[in-house]
Amino acid sequence: MSSARSAIASRLDRVRAHGRAAELDALVVTHLPNIQYLTGFSGSAGAVVLLPRECLLVVDFRYVTAAKAQSEPLDGLVTVSTFENSYDEALIEILVREGSARVGIEGAYLPVIRFNALAAGLASRAPLPVAPAESAPILVATERLVERARMIKDDAEIAILREAARRLAQVARGVPALVVEGRTEQQIAADIDRALRQAGFTKPAFDTIVASGPNGALPHARPTERPVQAGEATVLDFGGVYDGYCVDLTRTVQVGAVSADIQRLYAAVAEAQQAAIRAVRPGETASVVDAAARSVLERHGLGAAFGHGTGHGLGLEVHEEPRIGRATPRLPDERLEPGMVFTIEPGAYVPGLGGVRIEDDVLVTESGCEILTRS
Amino acid sequence: MSSARSAIASRLDRVRAHGRAAELDALVVTHLPNIQYLTGFSGSAGAVVLLPRECLLVVDFRYVTAAKAQSEPLDGLVTVSTFENSYDEALIEILVREGSARVGIEGAYLPVIRFNALAAGLASRAPLPVAPAESAPILVATERLVERARMIKDDAEIAILREAARRLAQVARGVPALVVEGRTEQQIAADIDRALRQAGFTKPAFDTIVASGPNGALPHARPTERPVQAGEATVLDFGGVYDGYCVDLTRTVQVGAVSADIQRLYAAVAEAQQAAIRAVRPGETASVVDAAARSVLERHGLGAAFGHGTGHGLGLEVHEEPRIGRATPRLPDERLEPGMVFTIEPGAYVPGLGGVRIEDDVLVTESGCEILTRS
Repeated sequence: MSSARSAIASRLDRVRAHGRAAELDALVVTHLPNIQYLTGFSGSAGAVVLLPRECLLVVDFRYVTAAKAQSEPLDGLVTVSTFENSYDEALIEILVREGSARVGIEGAYLPVIRFNALAAGLASRAPLPVAPAESAPILVATERLVERARMIKDDAEIAILREAARRLAQVARGVPALVVEGRTEQQIAADIDRALRQAGFTKPAFDTIVASGPNGALPHARPTERPVQAGEATVLDFGGVYDGYCVDLTRTVQVGAVSADIQRLYAAVAEAQQAAIRAVRPGETASVVDAAARSVLERHGLGAAFGHGTGHGLGLEVHEEPRIGRATPRLPDERLEPGMVFTIEPGAYVPGLGGVRIEDDVLVTESGCEILTRS
Repeated sequence: MSSARSAIASRLDRVRAHGRAAELDALVVTHLPNIQYLTGFSGSAGAVVLLPRECLLVVDFRYVTAAKAQSEPLDGLVTVSTFENSYDEALIEILVREGSARVGIEGAYLPVIRFNALAAGLASRAPLPVAPAESAPILVATERLVERARMIKDDAEIAILREAARRLAQVARGVPALVVEGRTEQQIAADIDRALRQAGFTKPAFDTIVASGPNGALPHARPTERPVQAGEATVLDFGGVYDGYCVDLTRTVQVGAVSADIQRLYAAVAEAQQAAIRAVRPGETASVVDAAARSVLERHGLGAAFGHGTGHGLGLEVHEEPRIGRATPRLPDERLEPGMVFTIEPGAYVPGLGGVRIEDDVLVTESGCEILTRS
């Protein structure tokens, strides 16, 4: 069994186990990164019906040839099919044919009108003459069935992410030389994007951020035509997609002699990042890692200047689980496990003065963590 | 009144009129391009509550400063607010405060669990003591309220799209020189992406397609390490984002002496594209434009080789309305109006032989159409 095949087999097993726990007979997967995770298919449209003994990948005309070729090594694990009319009609057809009684959909992604169309289609296809209500398939809004499996990277994924992070750290080493007085944020962003491509990334993982001086106080600034000036800190946040996987890194570069205020900001954020990294180990919760960074910034009087979470998972998406943030009643606070990969990126943003953010990517190991983007 | 201000005012008015027709007291907009259209805000998260006399833009911590600065010229039209907990709690708060009875949501985009959370939150906040059921706000899944307005571009949008298409056509003129025997699809794609950046585009509008020889038979192929060979046709499909707006273009380039089969394919697709462009005029339906291309290809025995629609609208998204395709009971068949901008991109794909696609962008005028990407 090839490693790709065994990885997919293990992913399907894990998600099926989550499905059984939710008492599902079938799971309809419509979120593209989840489809890619389960089948390797990376087109811009598609659907998966995960059944107890089969995984059906439904694609439209444009992708049939590519999907069939791609899934050849997965023969017996993943079956490709296509349709005449629409994805939703194809899904209804399959679910009726399979006689699935409880069908999970991905509640975090499936839009209301597709849910309604699937529900109406299934109801209208219930066995006739008039059947008891429970014989029509029931659609259940599920959450995180695939995402929970994706949180723990397998060996193949870790190898890709480690290589991607190594390349990103290499790009980061060249960044200070780009941040030169008089060059604009847009020019520097274009240079970084070119460096990402040269380093072997397929594309940037998100729009590169270059935020100089006061613009650094906007955590998600767009690069402008503002030239970098001496005495300023510039926040540079960029990432790349490598073999389908996303890595993400931020450096804050000082040009010339910066004020004592900015130096204090930088020192506090660096200390917060170190504290958070030291807190990463299996069995610890994500919120404890967040609190480690947050308490350092609070001690420096910068609690209010740090308005976002400490980090986010990386993988097929640039923002995925686990979320490294405060514990809330609404959002899961994960217990860390070996194989999780996420960012550690505390920041401090002071309107008028500027901002500092420092971000690295870590892998949870058996004993603590490995910093993947050490540069 | 500045032109940006008057454009936004007119957009808000048009969408409010669609909302009134649907008997809504409020419309919650969560699809980011729709938010950008209504408010100018272009962050990666946000929500809009459109009320009869107010348009509230809700953003999180990261975007407050930028959104407030950006909406300053829209004072009185758009009001920025933020929140402590979550977007959905903020939306519930606003809707309860406003006493909106019928609240539209965007059914094509809002995921099931957010719909459920909003509905539950609104129900729990209904006036006490126990009120009649109809006093709790009702959530209505709407479709295309903003999209229909977006279909007809205003003068500012047309100016941007015209300039963007002019620049894209200029990039296209340089493309044949890149398609040289022995260079790989990936190398050529990287060159095109660099040319897009040099031409002033913020980024590619989608992953650039370079599909040589047999790969051309996959309408959505990814660039591979396959070198272009003499005697082949290569499909190059690329686009750029310029000032927030997307344009999209395809050329099929022949290297060396290609077979008579490929020449026939090319001639048929070119003829189909011309026929479709000639069919574009106000009052005509989109499906008639599609049929014009399709009937040419059918006449050449290539009906089955053309599996996708003839085109799609362009604007803040690279695929938006109107859809230029077959009339179906499920999908709207728009009557063309001046100000619509869309692609005309018939293709023919023959497994083993290869593919041909030719794509240009057109603007519907009072009398017919203007080809924006003439190169």
